[in-house]
Amino acid sequence: MVTEKRTDELKSRWLRIQDGMRKSNAEACLFSVDVNLYYTTGHIYNGYFYLPVEGSPSFFVKRPEGLCGENVYSIRKPEQIPDLLAAKGEKLPKKIMLEADEIPYGEYIRLQSAFQPEETGNATALIRRIREIKSDWEVGQFRLSARQHEKTYGEIRECFRPGMTDTELQIEIEKRMRLNGSIGIFRTFGGNMDIFMGSILAGDNAGNPSPFDFALGGQGITPTLPIGANGTVLKEGMTILVDMAGNYTAYITDISRVFAIGKLPDEAYRAHQVALDIQRKMEETARPGTPCAELYELAVSMAKKEGLIDKFMGTKQQAKFVGHGIGIQINELPVLMLRSKELLQPGMVFAYEPKFVLPGVGAVGIENSYLVTDSGLEKLTLFEEEIIQLE
Amino acid sequence: MVTEKRTDELKSRWLRIQDGMRKSNAEACLFSVDVNLYYTTGHIYNGYFYLPVEGSPSFFVKRPEGLCGENVYSIRKPEQIPDLLAAKGEKLPKKIMLEADEIPYGEYIRLQSAFQPEETGNATALIRRIREIKSDWEVGQFRLSARQHEKTYGEIRECFRPGMTDTELQIEIEKRMRLNGSIGIFRTFGGNMDIFMGSILAGDNAGNPSPFDFALGGQGITPTLPIGANGTVLKEGMTILVDMAGNYTAYITDISRVFAIGKLPDEAYRAHQVALDIQRKMEETARPGTPCAELYELAVSMAKKEGLIDKFMGTKQQAKFVGHGIGIQINELPVLMLRSKELLQPGMVFAYEPKFVLPGVGAVGIENSYLVTDSGLEKLTLFEEEIIQLE
Repeated sequence: MVTEKRTDELKSRWLRIQDGMRKSNAEACLFSVDVNLYYTTGHIYNGYFYLPVEGSPSFFVKRPEGLCGENVYSIRKPEQIPDLLAAKGEKLPKKIMLEADEIPYGEYIRLQSAFQPEETGNATALIRRIREIKSDWEVGQFRLSARQHEKTYGEIRECFRPGMTDTELQIEIEKRMRLNGSIGIFRTFGGNMDIFMGSILAGDNAGNPSPFDFALGGQGITPTLPIGANGTVLKEGMTILVDMAGNYTAYITDISRVFAIGKLPDEAYRAHQVALDIQRKMEETARPGTPCAELYELAVSMAKKEGLIDKFMGTKQQAKFVGHGIGIQINELPVLMLRSKELLQPGMVFAYEPKFVLPGVGAVGIENSYLVTDSGLEKLTLFEEEIIQLE
Repeated sequence: MVTEKRTDELKSRWLRIQDGMRKSNAEACLFSVDVNLYYTTGHIYNGYFYLPVEGSPSFFVKRPEGLCGENVYSIRKPEQIPDLLAAKGEKLPKKIMLEADEIPYGEYIRLQSAFQPEETGNATALIRRIREIKSDWEVGQFRLSARQHEKTYGEIRECFRPGMTDTELQIEIEKRMRLNGSIGIFRTFGGNMDIFMGSILAGDNAGNPSPFDFALGGQGITPTLPIGANGTVLKEGMTILVDMAGNYTAYITDISRVFAIGKLPDEAYRAHQVALDIQRKMEETARPGTPCAELYELAVSMAKKEGLIDKFMGTKQQAKFVGHGIGIQINELPVLMLRSKELLQPGMVFAYEPKFVLPGVGAVGIENSYLVTDSGLEKLTLFEEEIIQLE
C-alpha cells in the first residue's frame, strides 16, 4: 500500500498518532475518512486504516478491488476486520478511537458493534491535533500550491472585462486555476462549509451574511449555495475581494486580494491600510508560544482604535475569528479567535485575514498563509498587497 | 422563513414526512444537513428544522444571524431547542428521528443528550424515501437542468482541439458548464463519492478502478482525487466518455455521451449499439411496478448474450449497478442493482447508464435521465446518442 518514497514521512505520522493513543489509553485507531486516509497512507481508498498502539498498521480495502501488498486486506464490509486481525495474532482493542466528528452515527455504531470495545475514543480530535503540526514535506506541498496560487492571482487582471459580473469574473479565474493545476475539489471540515472553488465579493454583496463558517459571506447566485458572487455587475467605486482556493496540491494555501475599477472613496484605502498594519503587527508578534487569542485581540484592538470595529469581519454578521489553520482542509487547527486556548507551535500553518466591509464600497483587507518557524513566521504566499487596479 | 411561492410544495413534503413518522411511531424529526434543509425549507442555513408529527414546524437558526419570521428562532447551540419548544407549549418527543446516516456520531450524541428521548429513529432513511418521489415542481427543476445540460453537451465539439489532453478538454467543458449556469458544487450522498464537476474518461483510463462508488473510475491526476481524467493525450482510435454533472439547478440531471477522434475499431460501434439496445429495452420495460432489479438484470442478460459481460460496467473492477436515483444529490434512491427490492413508482427520477470498457479503445455506452410516469417512462435528457465525431 505504501508505494511512495514517503514511507519515512508516513511512519513518523503513525508514531505521533500512536503517541496520542497512549495519552488516551487507547489500543488502536481506525480511520476511514478521505482526508485522514490520505494523511495516514498517502492514498484515498474506500476502506479503513487500522493502527494499533504498538506495531504495524493494517490496510483494509473495499475499493479499489484486488489490491495487494504487505498488511493489505481486501474486504467487503468492516465486520471482517476483527477476524482478520485475530488471524494475524493481533488482539482486539479494549479502547478503540473512531472518527467521532466525521463519520455518521450509523457507521460509528456499526464499527462499535463489530469491534465490541469496552470504550471508544475520538480519533477526529486526535488526528486534527496531529495534522495541525506540518512536516517539512507538507510545507513543501504548501510551497508548490503557493507558487501556482500566486500565478493565478497574477492573471486576474487579464480575466477582467468592463461590464462583466462578479460571477463571470469568477468563471474566468476558475479556468485559470484549473489550467494552473488546481485539483478543483475544495476540502473543508464540518457540515457548514459548502463552497465551490472560493468566493468573489463585489461591492455591497460583501456584507450579505451567509450560513457558512467562512470569514465573509455573500448572497450567492442560488438558494442552493448561498455564498459568494451574486451576479453583481462590476462598477467603478466598488471593491472586488478575491478569495479563491489555493488547492494546487492536497495542501491548500489561502490568499485574498482586493481589486478595484477606477477610484475608490478615501475611506477604502485607509481601511485597507489598517488591515495591512494589522497584518504587519501580527507578523511582528507571532512566534512559538504566542497565544492564538492574542493574534485575534491585536486585530480587534487596532480595528477599535481606528474606529472600524463595526466593519471588522463583516457588518450585519461578523466572523468571530481572524485566522485559521490550513492543510488538507481549509479549516484546520488552530483557530485564531478570542476563546482559543492554543499557543503557536513550530510547524503550524495558518491563514490570517483581517478584513473590513465598507457599506457602499465592499470589502477591503488582506489574507496570506504563514508557517510558524522556530523563531517567528515565514510568509508562504507572496503577491502584491495594495489594492490592485483593474482596467 | 418560508419566503418563497412554494409554500404549498413545502407543506406537502412536511405532510409526507409526518406520515412517515407515524409509521415509525416517532413524534418529531430534526434535520440539519444542507440538502435536507433545502428540501424541507427551500433554504440552506446553519441550524435545524424541527417537525413534530402533528402541527407546524419550527426553524432554529445559528447562521445567518438575526433572521426573523413565524416560528423562526435564533439560537447559538442546539441545547436551546428543548427550552424554546417548551416555551411555546410543545412537549418533547419520546421518539425523535435524527439524521443517523449523515450527521457525525458526536453531533448525534449531542442532540440525543439535549432532547433526552426514550428512543431515536433514522431520519436519513426516512427522508431519502420521501425525496425519492419527486413532485411536479421538482420535475420542472430537472427539466431546467436538462436544457442547460444538453446545451453544454452541444458545445463539446467546439471545446476540442487536436493534441489536447482529457484534462484540458474537461477544463473547457467546465467553463461552458459554468457559463451555462452550473452551480459548480456537485452534491453526493455518503463518504465515498469525491468528485469535481464530473468525469472524462479517455482510452484505457476508462478501465482504471477508482475507490469511489461511481459507475466507472479513472485514475485521476493526483492521489488526492483518484478519479476521472488522468492527463491522457486524446488520440485517434480511442473513445472519450463525457459524464459531466447536470447541476444547473439544485436538481442534477445525468448524461453520458461518447466522443471519438477519427475511426474506432468496429467492436466499439458494435458495443455502443448494444448499450443503446439495452437502453431501448429498458425504456420498453420500465413502468410503475417494475422491479428495479429487473432493469439491472435485462442489461446483464443482453451483455451476456452479446459476449460483452466481462466488459460491462468496467473490466478490472465492475460496478454492480446500472442506474441510480437522481435529485439534489447524484446518488439518490432507487438503486438499479440485483439486490434491490424496490419497484418503480410514478415520480421516481433515475439515470440509466449501460456502459462497456473495451481494452485498447476506452468506454462506450450511454446515460440518460428518466422520469417514471403513470404509464411508463419519460426521457428527460435529449441529445444525440450515437458516437460523436470530434474534428
